[in-house]
Amino acid sequence: GALGGLGLALGLWRRQAALAAAREDEEEKELRQRFMAPPVSGLRELRRRRRELRSRMELLIMETQAEVCRALAALDPGASFAVDSWERKEGGGGISCVLQDGEVFEKAGVNVSVVSGLLSEEAARQMRSRGKSLKAKDGKLPFCAMGVSSVIHPKNPHVPTMHFNYRYFEIEEADGTKQWWFGGGTDLTPTYLNEEDAVHFHKTLKEACDKHDLKLYPKYKKWCDDYFYIKHRGERRGIGGIFFDDMDSPSKEEVFQFVKSCAKAVVPCYIPIVKKHCHDSFTPEEKLWQQLRRGRYVEFNLVYDRGTKFGLLTPGSRIESILMSLPLTARWEYMHNPPESSKEAEILEVLRNPKDWVH
Amino acid sequence: GALGGLGLALGLWRRQAALAAAREDEEEKELRQRFMAPPVSGLRELRRRRRELRSRMELLIMETQAEVCRALAALDPGASFAVDSWERKEGGGGISCVLQDGEVFEKAGVNVSVVSGLLSEEAARQMRSRGKSLKAKDGKLPFCAMGVSSVIHPKNPHVPTMHFNYRYFEIEEADGTKQWWFGGGTDLTPTYLNEEDAVHFHKTLKEACDKHDLKLYPKYKKWCDDYFYIKHRGERRGIGGIFFDDMDSPSKEEVFQFVKSCAKAVVPCYIPIVKKHCHDSFTPEEKLWQQLRRGRYVEFNLVYDRGTKFGLLTPGSRIESILMSLPLTARWEYMHNPPESSKEAEILEVLRNPKDWVH
Repeated sequence: GALGGLGLALGLWRRQAALAAAREDEEEKELRQRFMAPPVSGLRELRRRRRELRSRMELLIMETQAEVCRALAALDPGASFAVDSWERKEGGGGISCVLQDGEVFEKAGVNVSVVSGLLSEEAARQMRSRGKSLKAKDGKLPFCAMGVSSVIHPKNPHVPTMHFNYRYFEIEEADGTKQWWFGGGTDLTPTYLNEEDAVHFHKTLKEACDKHDLKLYPKYKKWCDDYFYIKHRGERRGIGGIFFDDMDSPSKEEVFQFVKSCAKAVVPCYIPIVKKHCHDSFTPEEKLWQQLRRGRYVEFNLVYDRGTKFGLLTPGSRIESILMSLPLTARWEYMHNPPESSKEAEILEVLRNPKDWVH
Repeated sequence: GALGGLGLALGLWRRQAALAAAREDEEEKELRQRFMAPPVSGLRELRRRRRELRSRMELLIMETQAEVCRALAALDPGASFAVDSWERKEGGGGISCVLQDGEVFEKAGVNVSVVSGLLSEEAARQMRSRGKSLKAKDGKLPFCAMGVSSVIHPKNPHVPTMHFNYRYFEIEEADGTKQWWFGGGTDLTPTYLNEEDAVHFHKTLKEACDKHDLKLYPKYKKWCDDYFYIKHRGERRGIGGIFFDDMDSPSKEEVFQFVKSCAKAVVPCYIPIVKKHCHDSFTPEEKLWQQLRRGRYVEFNLVYDRGTKFGLLTPGSRIESILMSLPLTARWEYMHNPPESSKEAEILEVLRNPKDWVH
């Protein structure tokens, strides 16, 4: 009868609900395995809005974080990543993964942040390097910023420090138009020059760029050399890589695909270099030179780096995640000048006059 | 005869010239003993213009440098100060004295600089903290800036870091009027709190101030707490002291006398504290906390310090003398939070909420 039919329908509905819940559990488990922590925007929300670029970018930065952390952890079996999920009072949050004082790595941090809220016109202008003007409603602009950023400081002076950062911004103007752009880069800071490593690093990045446009690598290689310049020393921070900002053409999809290629190149451009040198022997003098170079790294990050400066000035930003980029230890000696034709002078020469590593 | 008279006169002249030369040699020898190196403006010039405040200030900063260097060297018998005299292409120069990696001091630098030349209106505005506007002739302002500045980083974590700086500026406007002002201060940065030392330090500074005006110490003590604020940490760099800028009243002579009292207070406010603690025993954990605090010192100096920032941006400035203030070694740990009611938490509390040490 009617009741039996209802019972049947109810049973069917219950079974379907149970199946859906099981499927969701399964998916959540899978996603949890893929990431270091649940994403800031929540898995359901990301799935629901999976066609939007914001969601795809959030998944990409989460995957990149997990990929890099796993590759690093595999090389430093005694140590493990501490994972902190944090919330930003003003909107959004992040996940910071840090491995400190391991066997291979002195300090390795990989940070994801996904923040949103309202920006002042002034802050919005500062966010964008070419300072395009934006029309705000009541002086405030709704924005969304997300990115993955990482600095890896190894212990052995023959293993270079590596940094990468890939980010996406959206700002909504008064008339509803959305401005968006991507930025990012990957760069290497060796204590001593190893030409083979420099070529491998740049070549891997060039291949990632070349898949999209042959003009990108030369342009972004130069931008990198120009950006990581410690003006008061007349030196670059390292031997470069690629760097770009304000990238908003040819199309959102194409730029996203380019950023994805760059993010996927992080592990292959760096991990082989770590593997190759992490058991190299070194002298106390080489360790000392590394510490002096770490001092220069601190100088660049605190005096010039736009991201760090922006972070330090932004209310509600998470200081520990911003300053994660600083090395565990650094050194400053008055008037330290390496002797001519030493290995120390060799790297200084390259930092003063950047070279082309691939043609 | 006439020839005999000429011979006599010539002999007399020769004797007088020889006496004058001997007197000058004697004076130069004496002045050389008083200072670490010959003054930038030259001894003769300083003597010739001895009534001018510029000359008296240059002698004061030179004397202060020598006084402090000798007091420090006496406590660290194995080490000695390296003395570098340097010239600035654009005008003037300086003398940098640095003791590095001694028994008692990790890095102790005392720097004198006396520079002059032409400033842009913009640079002149930035020089003066209250940003008074200045009328330039052809957009350029002749200026003269001199000062002594010093940072002392001891090895033992129970001996605090000390910083002082006393400076004088003159700027000539288009109509010939001279703007002048003094600035300066002395402040202490302990790794651990020792109340007795804090009281001694502040009391000595207060006594120096009180000789001139009872309002000065409270005003400049507060200015010091406000100035040495690491905003992104919500902490002061240390337990303060005095700090002032743009001081141009009641009169040039009176301000100079005040600055002189402050400069003379450097040795008595600090040296007894070094003597008291330089042989204290300490643990590796205490050394580690010192290194983390050194990291904060670097953060303040590179991110906020006006003098450092001005120096890094000024063409022709001597980087090694500016960054002499950075410690030999520093450390950054991710998420380092000392346990409640520890000695580390005790000093943090004072850095977050400055105290009055003398009433």
